[in-house]
This record gives sequence, structure tokens and C-alpha cells, in this order.
Amino acid sequence: MEALILSNAACALKKVKRQNPLVHQITNYITANDCANITLAIGASPVMADAPEEVEEIVARAQALVLNLGVLNPRTVDAMLSAGLKAKKLGVPVVLDPVGVGASSLRKETAKSMIKHIQPEVIRGNLSEIKVITGLDASTKGVDVSQEDMELAKDLRYVGEIAKKLSSRIQCVVAVTGMVDILSDGKKTIGIKNGHTMLTSITGTGCMCSALIGSLCSVTKDYFVAAASGVLVMGIAAEKTAEKLVGTDCGSGSFKTGLIDSVYTLTGMDIQKRGKVNMNVISI
Amino acid sequence: MEALILSNAACALKKVKRQNPLVHQITNYITANDCANITLAIGASPVMADAPEEVEEIVARAQALVLNLGVLNPRTVDAMLSAGLKAKKLGVPVVLDPVGVGASSLRKETAKSMIKHIQPEVIRGNLSEIKVITGLDASTKGVDVSQEDMELAKDLRYVGEIAKKLSSRIQCVVAVTGMVDILSDGKKTIGIKNGHTMLTSITGTGCMCSALIGSLCSVTKDYFVAAASGVLVMGIAAEKTAEKLVGTDCGSGSFKTGLIDSVYTLTGMDIQKRGKVNMNVISI
Amino acid sequence: MEALILSNAACALKKVKRQNPLVHQITNYITANDCANITLAIGASPVMADAPEEVEEIVARAQALVLNLGVLNPRTVDAMLSAGLKAKKLGVPVVLDPVGVGASSLRKETAKSMIKHIQPEVIRGNLSEIKVITGLDASTKGVDVSQEDMELAKDLRYVGEIAKKLSSRIQCVVAVTGMVDILSDGKKTIGIKNGHTMLTSITGTGCMCSALIGSLCSVTKDYFVAAASGVLVMGIAAEKTAEKLVGTDCGSGSFKTGLIDSVYTLTGMDIQKRGKVNMNVISI
Repeated sequence: MEALILSNAACALKKVKRQNPLVHQITNYITANDCANITLAIGASPVMADAPEEVEEIVARAQALVLNLGVLNPRTVDAMLSAGLKAKKLGVPVVLDPVGVGASSLRKETAKSMIKHIQPEVIRGNLSEIKVITGLDASTKGVDVSQEDMELAKDLRYVGEIAKKLSSRIQCVVAVTGMVDILSDGKKTIGIKNGHTMLTSITGTGCMCSALIGSLCSVTKDYFVAAASGVLVMGIAAEKTAEKLVGTDCGSGSFKTGLIDSVYTLTGMDIQKRGKVNMNVISI
Repeated sequence: MEALILSNAACALKKVKRQNPLVHQITNYITANDCANITLAIGASPVMADAPEEVEEIVARAQALVLNLGVLNPRTVDAMLSAGLKAKKLGVPVVLDPVGVGASSLRKETAKSMIKHIQPEVIRGNLSEIKVITGLDASTKGVDVSQEDMELAKDLRYVGEIAKKLSSRIQCVVAVTGMVDILSDGKKTIGIKNGHTMLTSITGTGCMCSALIGSLCSVTKDYFVAAASGVLVMGIAAEKTAEKLVGTDCGSGSFKTGLIDSVYTLTGMDIQKRGKVNMNVISI
Repeated sequence: MEALILSNAACALKKVKRQNPLVHQITNYITANDCANITLAIGASPVMADAPEEVEEIVARAQALVLNLGVLNPRTVDAMLSAGLKAKKLGVPVVLDPVGVGASSLRKETAKSMIKHIQPEVIRGNLSEIKVITGLDASTKGVDVSQEDMELAKDLRYVGEIAKKLSSRIQCVVAVTGMVDILSDGKKTIGIKNGHTMLTSITGTGCMCSALIGSLCSVTKDYFVAAASGVLVMGIAAEKTAEKLVGTDCGSGSFKTGLIDSVYTLTGMDIQKRGKVNMNVISI
């Protein structure tokens, strides 16, 4: 079963490179450049339009839509809702990244409204964010996972159950990224152990992971595999980058450049060889 | 004749480094950082103000204005029109980059209005974008050139004729960038064969090329030479960067960093030695 | 006395790494990514929310607030005022970066209003910017220091007196960054001679320095030391980066990546060993 997920994830990656799908992203200005570049690095084509007047036209040409709540203003919230509703009508898959959702009521309400009206195919967030969406109390620290939740995240079964519950309730794939990434589609709940702590030393790795998931959702209807593939690409690319930097005095600047390099050069073979998927998260 | 263009282009580059002109850019948040950095790398000074309340004051101090339609909202469109009109009144040259103009009616109308009211000195775009501006049907794929137009672009004479026609009609220099870059001022139509496919692996290379052209327009009244020089700098810098990466396992992240390095270290001598200008595009 | 400042600055740096404070930044889209990454590199955690509807909630969780006037629009100006007022009420220190304040009346009025209503703990700018705030005539060139002021800045006593006067008048620490950085709290006025000319070859080094100062203000009530520490980290990181690039054909792209690396790896020991603080700026 683990092997099947890896081989399907590898296959999805190859398809992205072959089909060069258009991925519409409505996102924040802090990480938009990195999201566009990682989308190109995996082999897809980004378009980042966010004007309410044009997003329906833009998404109609796209193969996936990524909605990122990193910076909110009334215009982009409108644009996200219009684009999201149009995407659903056209069968274009939607990935929601509820960045820092616990940090303000505005974010909580926006995320709730997105989920209710758009019903995304995939939601990706850190444990603090996913807990807030699930309606649980979560200590929140800006856009990063809180120290407290970072501790809690070590209990994979706990995270797995949250992911599974949320996934069942809102009928979408849930990806909780962290030291171990937990994914659930309500039936299967898996853990992915790739990645590297250097991912926390640069901004936007969550946003970039969502951009990768969006790219993969545009080539397969199996959104669980797409989400797993995106998370695997990010985690394995981070490992490869960190390995290259061992023994140098490089830091987070080089890591960021290297991460894009690693996604650019990553192959299906890397996923099959290095992917660490565990099917038994909840029963651990 | 080719030699003359190269020597004038080299001369313009030297002037930028000597005069450090101020280049006002109203642009999108996805690539604004890269545009500012490449403007500094060539030796000019960027100012990216976009508030309608201040752009007239800002452009009055600048030596060139770059208008980039990458992300539109009513405020920046207003700002672009105000800044553009002021620029024309003051004789400050305007470069228009109609990013993804075929992707929505909003973009088409905005570009049309810019051209009508401001009459830019230079328009730079990929073939899909230039076709839309010319009023031709163009298949559109987000902000990148469409697959279909990428095929069409191989017919240099066809591209040359579009560039020439548009240039004559709206009385401005037209630069169609792609595998071979085609430039026309309505009388001369040239091809430039520098560049590298890695330019398509990162976001914003079109925007950055327009920023370079803006920097060069601020030191010479010969906007055809300025546009050629900007395109040459971008193409040669890309070649030099790609050469450095041969034999490494680097990818698009390193290419982006290296591209800025290469523009920073590029000299007039590089343009004269490596520039590949062809005067006979239309008669090929 | 110089040694005491260096040792306090080193100590503040260590505290940032230990406490990982949350630094709320309302900033411009051109350099926001770099500011977030340098905040992470020094060991703090950035949150860049700018919606008026949420900034009070966000700043209430933060340990410092940075207000950057790089790009202005009515919404962010509102957000800055709300966040600033809330910060003052809660005792959260505020750093103001009056980017390009001389470039337009809008910027001048906004900066004036910020200072009047919020009374920031630290103001950091180049000499042109600080002169405008002080009410002096300043030649202005976009967001960079003007050529004329760059010449004037060589007279350290002159700069020191401006910094001292402004500091006394508005009761805040003033940092004038340039070839030599001058800091004053109205009583002490010091010069810091670290840094490298390559800092002028990339965009956002001023903004990034303010982000570092914000990070340091969140761990000490001695804002003079915090400002000095931020300026020292930036200057020493620049020196270390430039040293690494000697003998390579790298340029400003590599310098930017290396600068983040150097901040990431910088230690209190580096500050103590390499910091060049001079207490006698005004009496020189």
C-alpha cells in the first residue's frame, strides 16, 4: 500500500512535467514570487491574477486553483470567492491554505466562509491552523505553528485523528504539515516522514507546499495522491538540499535557492526511492 | 549595421552605469523584488511607488517609467494612467509590459487604454501578448506564451511582420521576446538570438527584461537601441549563467541568483562580443 | 563604553535566538519576502498582516512592530496607525522606517502623522530620509540616499548632530544608516563602521535592517542597544558575505543570498570581535 502511494505520487509528478498545467493562485505578496518559482520548478505554469473583475476568466483556463489566506483584503477575499465558485462549477480542483487562521477573527471567518461556499478538494496547514479550522482551541503564534502545538504534533495518532475527523466532516483531503506530515481523506490516514528542520528557517514553505499540491491536483483526480505527492516533493527536496549544504557554512539563504533547485531536478525515481510513507498513523 | 547596433547598445549600458538613472516602475507584487534588483544590477536606481496620490511627483524625478500589467487593481491602473500622462508631458520615456494581456477582458481594456492615452515609447511582450495587442486572435495561457504561439514564433518573418505592423500603427518600438527576440521600430526590424531556455524556468524574466529596457531608455533617446540593449543584456546574461551551471546539479533557483549576478557583471564588451543581431528578419 | 555596547548587542542577539519573538511587520510588497526571511535568519518569527480589520489582534500577540512606508495606500496607512496605537497601549516597541519620505508629500505627511500619533521607539533611515523628517531640505532620489547627501554624510559630526537633535525632539532612538551608521538617543551618539558597499547593490537592505532592529527591540527595553545590535548584525553580515565572494565572479544576486546566510550563522562572538563602534562621533 505504501509502495502504491509512492508509485502513484511519482506518476503524478511525471504528468505535471509532461502536461505543464496552468495553476491559478490567489495568494499573498510575501511569498508569491517563491510560489510562482516553485510551480515552474515542478513543471507547471503559474498565473497569480487576483482582481475580482478577471479571476473567473482566468480560472476557467486553469487546471487547478490555490487560495492562500496569507494576506487578506476585501478585494482578494472577493476574488477568492468568485474564483472558487467558478472553479467548482467547472470541476477545477481547489486547494485552500488557511495561513495563520488563528491569528485573527477576520482570518477565521474568511476560512470558514471559503470552506462552506467552495468546499476545497484539499486543505493544507500546520497543526495550529488545522486545529482552528476543526474548531479546536489552538494556541497561535502568527503564521507559524505554536510551540505548544509543535509538542502536541509529536503524538501522531492525535494529529491523525484530527485530520481524519476534519476530512470526514468537510469531505476533503486534509494535509497537516510538520515534523511528520499527516494526510487523511477520511478513510486512509498516512504519515510522511520526509523533510528537514531547515524548512522552518525560511518563509513560505507552507505556501510553496500548497502551490505544489495545486500543481499535482491539476493532473490527477485522486487528490489524496496529489496532496501526498506535493508533500513528498517538498520533503524530499528539502532533504536533498540540506545534504548538499552539509559541511558548508551556508545558511537559510542558500537553503532557499537550493530548495527550488531540488524541486526542479527532482524525479519520480526520487519519490520512489526516498519517500517515507506510513499507513498506520492512527493505529500506532 | 549589426555592428553599429551592438556598439550603440554597449554604449547605452555604459551610460546607465555612469549616470545611475532613476527608473520609476509601477508593477506587480510577484516580481517587483526581482525587477528592483535587476535594475540595481544594471546600474540604475529603482523606485516602485504606485499610489495615485504620489506617482506624478515620483515620475517627475525619474528618467524613465515602466508600466507592468502583471497584477491589476483599480488603484494601480489609476496610478499607471496618471504617471504615464505626466511622463509624456515631461518627456520621460514609458515602457509598457502588457503581462498576460490575453488572459482577461480587464487586461485587454487596460492595455488598450494605456496605449491610446499614453503612447508608450516601447512595448515588450511575448508573441501571445503582442498578438492580442495587435488585435489578432491569440491562444492564451496565463502569463506565458501559448504552446501554439511558441510554434508560430519559429517563423521569424511572421513575427517580424506583426512587430513591424504594430510598431508602425502605434508609433512605438515593439519588442517580441521569445526563442529569438524580434524588435521593430516600423522601419528596421531585427532579430536577436541570444538567450537560453532556462529563462522560461523562472518567473518574471519578461518583467525583468522590461525593467532593463526602462533603465536603458533613461540614457538614450534612441529607444530602438535601448530596447535592443535591454534584450541583449538579458539574453547574454542568461547564456553566461547557463554556462556557469553546466556540469552542476543546480536548477532554476541557482539560475535566478546567477542571472542577477551576470547582469551585475556584464559589460559593454560582452554585448559587442556575444551579441547576435540579425537585420534581415523580414526578408529571411 | 564601546565594549559595553558590543557586549550588550551580542547579548540581545542571543536572546532573540533563545526567545524566538514574534515581530509584526506592516511593510511593502517589494521587500516583504526578504524582510520575513532575514527576521527568521536572526531567530525571530515574522508576521506580515496588514488588514486594518485584524492588525490590532495581530500586534497584541507580537513583541515588536515594524512600520515600513515603502509602498503606501490608504488601507495600509490605516493599518499602520491602528497597529501603532495598539502597540503603544500595550507597550510593544515600534520601529519606523520612513522609506523614500522625501519623494512625495503623501510620504511626508504619513511619516509626520506616524511620528506624532505613535511616537516610535526607533526610526531608521538614510541621511536623505532623516533630513526630511528633521524638517531640513534634502535632495531626494527615490528611495535611495541622494548623491549630494552621500557626500554630506562623510561629515560624521554633521550627521551626528542631526541624529541627536531629532532624537531629542521626538524622544526616540534615531539610526542614520550609510557608509558609517550614526545612532543617537539624544544623549549618546555613536558611529558604527561596519558594512560594505555591496549593500547598495541590492534592494531592501534598509528595510531588512529595520526588520532586524524590530527583532532586537522585542528582547530588550534598551532600544539604543537594540538599534545598534541590528545595525551591527547587518554590517558584519555584509562584510562576511563580501569576504566570501572575493575572487569569485559573483555579483549582487549571490550577495543577497549570502547576506541571509551570514545573518543566519552570525553569533554574538562575531559582534564582539568585529563590531566597530565609535563613541566620539560629535566631538570628532
